[in-house]
Amino acid sequence: MPELRKDPIIGRWVIISTERGKRPSEFEYNQVPAKAGFCPFCPGNEPKTPNEVLAYRKNNNGPNSAGWHIRVVPNKYPALKVEGEISREGDGVYDKMNGIGAHEVIIESPDHKESLASVNMRQFEEILWAYRDRIIDLKKDLRLRYILIFKNHGEAAGATLEHSHSQLIALPIIPKRVAEELDGALEYYNFKERCIFCDIIRQEIMQGSRVISENSDFIALTPYAPKAPFEIWLLPKAHESSFENCQKHHYENLALIFSDVLKRMNKVLNFPPYNFILHTAPLKDGATQYYHWHFEIMPKLTKVAGFEWGSGFYINPTPPEEAAQFLRDVKL
Amino acid sequence: MPELRKDPIIGRWVIISTERGKRPSEFEYNQVPAKAGFCPFCPGNEPKTPNEVLAYRKNNNGPNSAGWHIRVVPNKYPALKVEGEISREGDGVYDKMNGIGAHEVIIESPDHKESLASVNMRQFEEILWAYRDRIIDLKKDLRLRYILIFKNHGEAAGATLEHSHSQLIALPIIPKRVAEELDGALEYYNFKERCIFCDIIRQEIMQGSRVISENSDFIALTPYAPKAPFEIWLLPKAHESSFENCQKHHYENLALIFSDVLKRMNKVLNFPPYNFILHTAPLKDGATQYYHWHFEIMPKLTKVAGFEWGSGFYINPTPPEEAAQFLRDVKL
Repeated sequence: MPELRKDPIIGRWVIISTERGKRPSEFEYNQVPAKAGFCPFCPGNEPKTPNEVLAYRKNNNGPNSAGWHIRVVPNKYPALKVEGEISREGDGVYDKMNGIGAHEVIIESPDHKESLASVNMRQFEEILWAYRDRIIDLKKDLRLRYILIFKNHGEAAGATLEHSHSQLIALPIIPKRVAEELDGALEYYNFKERCIFCDIIRQEIMQGSRVISENSDFIALTPYAPKAPFEIWLLPKAHESSFENCQKHHYENLALIFSDVLKRMNKVLNFPPYNFILHTAPLKDGATQYYHWHFEIMPKLTKVAGFEWGSGFYINPTPPEEAAQFLRDVKL
Repeated sequence: MPELRKDPIIGRWVIISTERGKRPSEFEYNQVPAKAGFCPFCPGNEPKTPNEVLAYRKNNNGPNSAGWHIRVVPNKYPALKVEGEISREGDGVYDKMNGIGAHEVIIESPDHKESLASVNMRQFEEILWAYRDRIIDLKKDLRLRYILIFKNHGEAAGATLEHSHSQLIALPIIPKRVAEELDGALEYYNFKERCIFCDIIRQEIMQGSRVISENSDFIALTPYAPKAPFEIWLLPKAHESSFENCQKHHYENLALIFSDVLKRMNKVLNFPPYNFILHTAPLKDGATQYYHWHFEIMPKLTKVAGFEWGSGFYINPTPPEEAAQFLRDVKL
C-alpha cells in the first residue's frame, strides 16, 4: 500500500511508494556536465568576470589576478542589481518592486577539474567561510531581507558553466518556501515551546532508519516526507538559526560531513546532477528559538517537474528509509 | 532593471527579466516524445490495461473492446489505491496516512498519431466531458477530498507513453499548492467581498497586454507573475468554483479556446513538451464565491527545477507581456 506522509514543518503531503522502492540503478537521468569551452572562472581569466567582491589568496598580487584559491564575483548576467532605491508599487490587484539585490558566483576552486566532492577538507571549509563572509558583508545593506545560497551541479540541474561554483542571490523579499518554513516552525514553537528541527533531530537519532551519518556537530539524514528520491538534509545538532553565527569547529565538521555525503551520493547514484540550498534565517530576524539553519541536497533523478511544481503534489518512488540505507551502507 | 512581481493569489514573488526577454527560439529544450513501442492505449489492446471505468463508444461491443473514442482506465502502476479504510496516524513529530485514492488515465483518442492539439472540436469537447464524468463519479466516495486532473506531454514533461492521454489523481488530502490558492482567494474575498480571479479577469481585459485570446465564455492569458516562461491560464469569464458545474456551452467554448491556445503554443515554441493542471474547488466545498476554477498550462522550456522548487523562488527570463504578444500575434 502506498503511503501519504506529511512534512511536519510546511505541511505538504507527499506520496511514498513503499511497496517496492525504486533502486538507485533504476533512475535514468542525464549525466551531461555543464558546457565546456572557454572558462571565465579559471586562473588567468580574471578580467573576463566582473570585479571580484571577495577572494582568498596567499600571494599579494592584488585583486582580479591569479593566485586565489576561492574567488567570489558578481554574476555577469545578474537576476538582480545592487544599484537603486527600492520602490514598491501596485497596479490594480498586482504588486511589483524593482529588482534590487545581488547575484554572485562563488568559484570553489582554481582547478577546473575539481568538484565539490573532490576538493580537500581545507578547501571545502574555506568555501563555507566564503559563504559566511559574503552573508556578513551583504547583511549591512538594509534593503536586503534574505540571502539564498545554492548550487546547481550538472546541466540537468541547471548549471551553465562546468567549473565548480555555487551562487548567492540576495533579495529584498523573503522567498515563499522560506516564509512557509519559518511560519510552520514558529507555529510549532508557539504550541510546544521547542524547535521543530531539534525535535526532528532527536527523533531521527532515536529511530535511526533515516540517518546517513553524523559527527559531533552535524547529522545527515533523509527527511521523513521528501519531495524527491534521495533528498538529503544536513543539520547542526545544536540549535542555531543562522548559518553565519556558527563556531569555527562547526565549519570544520560541516565540511567533513558535507564532503562525505556528496561522496556517498556520487557512489550510490553514479555522479548525479544535483542542487543544494542553504536554508537560514532572514537577515533582519536575529537569533530565534524556533528556526534552525540547514542544507537541503537534491539529486536530480526524475524528469517530471511541471506537474509537481504546479500542483504542490509530489510522488516519490523511493522511501527515505531505503535511500538512507543505500547512502549509509555504501563503501567509499 | 529586472522586476520583482508578486502573485496576487498565493503571494509568491518572482523575478521577471524585463530588459531583454528571452525569445521563443532562444530556449533549448528536449523535444523527445515519450517512449514508442507496443501501445496499451491503442484499440485492440484493451485487455492490456486494467478494466475501463468509463468509455464513450458508438457501437455496442461492450466494455474493454475496440470501438470507443474516449476511454478511461485505472493506471496500471497507480500512485494510490481505492481499496481500504483511511487510517491516519502519528509517529512522533510526523503524520502519515495510507495511500487511499484513485489514479486513472484518460485516453484522449483511439488514434495513436493524434495529439490534444490536433483532435477535432467534437473530440476535444468529449475529453472535457470525460473529465467531468469521472469527477462526478469519484465525488460519491466520501473518503476523497480533491481531484487533480493533469497532462504530461513529451518525455521532458514526464510522459512515459506516447499515445495522447491525461491523468486523474483522486486524493484523501488537499495538495499544498491548491490549499494555498484557496487560502489566498478566501483572504482576498474576506477583505474585498469579490472573487480575486474575477478581479484579475476584469483588469486583464482592461489592460489587454497579457491577453492571448477570448471567446464569449473564456479568456486565455499569461499570468502577471508567472513561475515559468510562456505559462498560460485559461479561465471562465463567469464566476464558477467547480469545473464539473459548468453549462454545456462552456465545454464547447473551452474546447475551442483550449485547442486554439495549444496550436498557438506549438507554432510559437515549435511543439514543446508541456504540462497542464486543472485547478478546481475541493470535492466537499460546494459552490463558493471566492474560488474560480481554471486551467494552468506550462510549456517545459527551462531545465532548472531543483533550485526553484526547493526555494520557492523563480527567475523567469520572458516577461508575460512579451509571451502573450508572441502567442496572440502568431498566424495559425
